[in-house]
Amino acid sequence: MHVAVIGGTRGLGNWIANFLQEKGCQITLTGRNSIVGEDIANKMGVLYTSDNIQAASHANVVIIAVPIEFTSQTIKEVAPHLQEGSLLVDVTSVKELPAETMQKYAPPGVEVLPTHPMFGPRIRSLEGQVIVLTPQKKGKWYPKVLELLKLERARILETTPEQHDRMMSIVQGLTHFAYIAIASTIEKMGVDIKESRKFASPIYNLMLDMVARIVAQNPYLYYSIQTQNKYIPEVHQTFLETFQDLKSMISDENQDEFVKAMSSAAKHLNDLEASLGRSDKAISALNAEVTHLKNSVGMEVGLRHMYSGKVHLGILESLSPDFVILKENNRTVKLKLSNIEVLSGEELKSWKTGNLPLKKLDVSVVLPETSQPELISRVIRSIEGVVSSEVKDVYYGGQIPEGKKSITFTYQVLSLESMERVQELLTGFGGIIR
Amino acid sequence: MHVAVIGGTRGLGNWIANFLQEKGCQITLTGRNSIVGEDIANKMGVLYTSDNIQAASHANVVIIAVPIEFTSQTIKEVAPHLQEGSLLVDVTSVKELPAETMQKYAPPGVEVLPTHPMFGPRIRSLEGQVIVLTPQKKGKWYPKVLELLKLERARILETTPEQHDRMMSIVQGLTHFAYIAIASTIEKMGVDIKESRKFASPIYNLMLDMVARIVAQNPYLYYSIQTQNKYIPEVHQTFLETFQDLKSMISDENQDEFVKAMSSAAKHLNDLEASLGRSDKAISALNAEVTHLKNSVGMEVGLRHMYSGKVHLGILESLSPDFVILKENNRTVKLKLSNIEVLSGEELKSWKTGNLPLKKLDVSVVLPETSQPELISRVIRSIEGVVSSEVKDVYYGGQIPEGKKSITFTYQVLSLESMERVQELLTGFGGIIR
Repeated sequence: MHVAVIGGTRGLGNWIANFLQEKGCQITLTGRNSIVGEDIANKMGVLYTSDNIQAASHANVVIIAVPIEFTSQTIKEVAPHLQEGSLLVDVTSVKELPAETMQKYAPPGVEVLPTHPMFGPRIRSLEGQVIVLTPQKKGKWYPKVLELLKLERARILETTPEQHDRMMSIVQGLTHFAYIAIASTIEKMGVDIKESRKFASPIYNLMLDMVARIVAQNPYLYYSIQTQNKYIPEVHQTFLETFQDLKSMISDENQDEFVKAMSSAAKHLNDLEASLGRSDKAISALNAEVTHLKNSVGMEVGLRHMYSGKVHLGILESLSPDFVILKENNRTVKLKLSNIEVLSGEELKSWKTGNLPLKKLDVSVVLPETSQPELISRVIRSIEGVVSSEVKDVYYGGQIPEGKKSITFTYQVLSLESMERVQELLTGFGGIIR
Repeated sequence: MHVAVIGGTRGLGNWIANFLQEKGCQITLTGRNSIVGEDIANKMGVLYTSDNIQAASHANVVIIAVPIEFTSQTIKEVAPHLQEGSLLVDVTSVKELPAETMQKYAPPGVEVLPTHPMFGPRIRSLEGQVIVLTPQKKGKWYPKVLELLKLERARILETTPEQHDRMMSIVQGLTHFAYIAIASTIEKMGVDIKESRKFASPIYNLMLDMVARIVAQNPYLYYSIQTQNKYIPEVHQTFLETFQDLKSMISDENQDEFVKAMSSAAKHLNDLEASLGRSDKAISALNAEVTHLKNSVGMEVGLRHMYSGKVHLGILESLSPDFVILKENNRTVKLKLSNIEVLSGEELKSWKTGNLPLKKLDVSVVLPETSQPELISRVIRSIEGVVSSEVKDVYYGGQIPEGKKSITFTYQVLSLESMERVQELLTGFGGIIR
């Protein structure tokens, strides 16, 4: 299958190109900068062209992933050139205008699927991620897209472009925009953020993190989202009036009105108890990790970098509020606490098994003839550092004393320490190692 | 030590009373409603009086924990009656006015400690909680308070009442107030919250949870905090102007100004990467829990209620977005997902050991005389459901064949299944159970 990703050299477009290449699609990228584009395409082992029309006219699936402000003109440029029977997708954060434009400019026989993946290019898998699909007419491609996304365990939400844009005017036009205003106010008031965090409950710290998260996004993208969603101006106006009203209740010392407004807003949000629970859990998870690390100084830990996925294995030397110091092989590594996740015991074992060199060993032991080789093999497998164990051979007679048998196990270990543990186990139960 | 908690019948005051009672203090509560007050005091096994002055004049430590709007008048009422050498503490969310009032009305020889515990009465321990102390003159009590709080692993922040109130004008006057305005706007726009959550990324869901968390607080307390902190009006005004400016940049399509404002606010927040990491982790912890539960259907799980601490142990029957259904003993229990934490394997084992009835068993086994009783006892201890194991006796001769010995282990199990596993282990290695 040939897929053209228009604007596929960077950001989410590039993430999609990589994802579809892994799934076995043949990818053509386009992008405005042909030096950058060719370089990226070479590294990925895919095709690049600066000619959007050429890419689109040769593909079975065309994905528009250009910045939001260029979406309309790009659709107008490429849509008329799609092959009959092909699929046209856009991944813009607003849906009404792109949906209309694709429907209008794509020739009959081309299936149109306006899409909004609700995530950025930082994610490592689609599992649990929300993808909004706003098909106006479903064709033969639609079930295929659904199947692919379901296999990846994405959460699919089907709706209309209008309903999407109305909801986004709340998510992005209200929440995100208010966050940007909070950050900008903090700046204007000249507040020292580090200092304010000290004064703060864990919940305020998480709030600030969320504010920081939003303002850290691409401001051009945010500007475009705010300007291209036609429901947003009303939301902004309503928020402004609401804030003004609340502020007046405070300055006029109108307690009754303030209490009424706050209680009524709380009631509308409903199921507050669940919100309290989830936010408590989020905070308690952050605290639990720090506590666990504090208790692991001097011990072996596995730390996974949250974005690259790289695992660092070593002895935890020390822990400060922002960093962990790890002795990894012969060097000292300093890792930012906020960027790493601690592997659980099981994750660590499974990582070691897959990544460290294994030693394959045999051991033969003489035990009473009533002993059960498979059971002993299971006990060997449960020893720390032992990755696998199998019964290779059971032998009677010859040099083996009466009432006894010799069992040979083949097992794999991560280090020779584990070999010693296996031998201790066998001799501990009275076995004689041959 | 006699402690009077003025306003100790409810909320944080009552939490403090319970906490200090556990530490061995003799507590007297006061509160406006004497029927409620006597009832609570009876249940706690402490004293109650409706007479603040009487309570304060007989105590070594007096803690003012009345609602913020009554703090000043209560201080004026009780402070003059404190004993020489006693300690006067308030726990109000603003600090300048209470600090001034206490200093002015307490007789010489009374130590004053204006305090702001940055948590509510929902917490189960002080560990990791922030407590702001704003002493103006430290006396003999101060090191004792510090020592107590450090033992509880609270995070102590010492500052001035003014600096405290300035920072709180950001934490509560800006962040919390903007959240209330967001919630109120959502209500005015008539947005269906459940519907909007479907459209939303996990981060938006956590944002909504934080908004819900704030509006779920006591509106009278919030009103008082907003009106009693003198730095807040300026913060409100700055936010209003900032939001208005940003809104105009969008409606005037002034991209440059918007991008400049957002980038500059982001830069001021600094260390955005850490914020991204921490908020990603918070979300990933919430997701990981759900994934773990999904994989545990049909299996035994231990679920701890987040606020009561009660542990439910049973077979996980099913899982919906909001609830888990657990088969606990012979009844079916429906628990709200947001209110429970999943116990880890280790936590579960340790809970079972402490809470389920244990069976103490003996087993005698004949094994080769080279076998090592202590090592075998360790292997027995590692069997699922076995809580302890010790070597009771080692015996040669008599009915024991040559070259063999009989070892008796005493071990404790949670269920008879584990007894079978112990026997399987011993016979599996060729032992003969006597």
